[in-house]
Amino acid sequence: MKILILGGGGMVGQKLAHHLLAQGLNGQKDLHIISHDIGFPPNAAPVTDARTGNLADPGVPQALAGERPDVIFHLASIVSGEAETNFDLGWNVNMHPTWALLEALRAQHEASGGTYRPRLVFTSSIAVFGGPYPDKISDDFLSAPQTSYGAQKTICEAMISDFSRKGFVDGLSIRLPTICVRPGKANLAASSFFSGIIREPLNGKPAILPVPDDVRHWHASPRSAVGFLTHAAGLDTNALQGRRALNLPGVSCTVAEQIEALRDVAGNDAVALIERRPDPAIQKIVSGWPRDFAPQRALDLGFRADADFRSIVQVYIDDDLSAA
Amino acid sequence: MKILILGGGGMVGQKLAHHLLAQGLNGQKDLHIISHDIGFPPNAAPVTDARTGNLADPGVPQALAGERPDVIFHLASIVSGEAETNFDLGWNVNMHPTWALLEALRAQHEASGGTYRPRLVFTSSIAVFGGPYPDKISDDFLSAPQTSYGAQKTICEAMISDFSRKGFVDGLSIRLPTICVRPGKANLAASSFFSGIIREPLNGKPAILPVPDDVRHWHASPRSAVGFLTHAAGLDTNALQGRRALNLPGVSCTVAEQIEALRDVAGNDAVALIERRPDPAIQKIVSGWPRDFAPQRALDLGFRADADFRSIVQVYIDDDLSAA
Repeated sequence: MKILILGGGGMVGQKLAHHLLAQGLNGQKDLHIISHDIGFPPNAAPVTDARTGNLADPGVPQALAGERPDVIFHLASIVSGEAETNFDLGWNVNMHPTWALLEALRAQHEASGGTYRPRLVFTSSIAVFGGPYPDKISDDFLSAPQTSYGAQKTICEAMISDFSRKGFVDGLSIRLPTICVRPGKANLAASSFFSGIIREPLNGKPAILPVPDDVRHWHASPRSAVGFLTHAAGLDTNALQGRRALNLPGVSCTVAEQIEALRDVAGNDAVALIERRPDPAIQKIVSGWPRDFAPQRALDLGFRADADFRSIVQVYIDDDLSAA
Repeated sequence: MKILILGGGGMVGQKLAHHLLAQGLNGQKDLHIISHDIGFPPNAAPVTDARTGNLADPGVPQALAGERPDVIFHLASIVSGEAETNFDLGWNVNMHPTWALLEALRAQHEASGGTYRPRLVFTSSIAVFGGPYPDKISDDFLSAPQTSYGAQKTICEAMISDFSRKGFVDGLSIRLPTICVRPGKANLAASSFFSGIIREPLNGKPAILPVPDDVRHWHASPRSAVGFLTHAAGLDTNALQGRRALNLPGVSCTVAEQIEALRDVAGNDAVALIERRPDPAIQKIVSGWPRDFAPQRALDLGFRADADFRSIVQVYIDDDLSAA
């Protein structure tokens, strides 16, 4: 089985590659893994074929489609903050290459006489939503993005659904919760603190909390993200009944509940490393984000998230802190 | 005031042009009207500037944006059936030119030092929706199109919203009900019979009804469509609060109610001209279409539709049958 990971150098892409190398994909062990990204970390997963390149360059999507992978994990994207500050870059990375990829896959489908029809798993995001929200976002709530990143994800979802409906590919879009706890260094994303207030204290370092303790958000661990991806790769897409974008399960909790989970696991000394430093700019951004979902379709389709935020903290300790 | 109508040669485009020439736009009488389409009818509205060309050709969106119109009515599209049978043509007409237009308008915005920011009114469609439906589709119901045409409309909506959020244009998308009664000849669209069963008998001709009498659908007259467009052109878009795609009001009625409205207006002899000839293919398509809406936001924003289906029949008699 040939697998292509687009954005394979990123945090989730690397965890996915490591998982596939160790576990196979849904029982299939004999995998040829092509991982594509603009760059890879020094300790990158030893996949069959690591290719450095830019999916936005002419000919790149065509060459990758020409490999006729059975399963494509499309994780390639620039993050929300960057798409917001660099408008051209956002569309050039987050939308146009997806169109070019779909067209290249359609060309392969047609050249194959209709037999080639790859599974395409696209990582969308809860950024496709915009407020005001109900208490829990249902599966039939509208997409009304309030960022360019969210708009680009919405558009890719619609393209993938239509190319799938026509039978050129067999795709679905999974709207990931905010992935937490992200290993490594803090970044400039507005959501960075959700991971930072757990990760930094567990590493004995101070962390800054820029929002009030009652801020509620929707989380899943990196391990759950990998589980979502592999489950999506094996799903019977007929069960989607034409609605190929899915809200995924996650953990809805407040910052206060996050902190209590940290206290449970690492005690008061760890919690004491969190410094409250209110940042109105970040508070404003975060106030527009989804807080909770009722993702019944994904649950019915067998997607499973972490049990609670304490489990999310434990995943970080097991998978990243211990490994470091 | 300079106005650009894209798709100005079509039925609604022509009615809009005639209306603007006769009434002005929201009180503004001194209008420079540019109407653009691949072709115009022989009795086309005598606008200031009728331009024949293809919006999908390189340079065309740029040249039109270079006119710096104050208001742009973007009605240019191929119809649902054609976008479904000709996949490439659908995307090449219904999506890519809208992207090129938005980029061209952004370039004008930037060249003007940020002062040029046109009102853009885009005719979207209830085809952005896909079943299963609630009894009435609410304003926060998801877009899950089941046609390429619907996917293309969804994508253009998301692009227009994001370019508007960034301040490059001031756009909104209005999701038109099925326009009925369409004047002129029957076409091959699956929805053609909704107009045909009224128009043909009123012209003393036989009409074919391919679906059961209890089929319910969502209608608005061409006169309402022109009213929606001009109202959208004058709307305070701050009131949209970031949700720039609107479900419009319409008339929800069954085919049986349509026929009774015809009987009221034109008597039993007219109704006797309708021949029931069930067509399973058309029934299957129509069964996936929306039946009813609760378009509260559009009503609150002052959009008004026809009072009932009898009024829709009367609009046809007044505006088209009498004129012919």
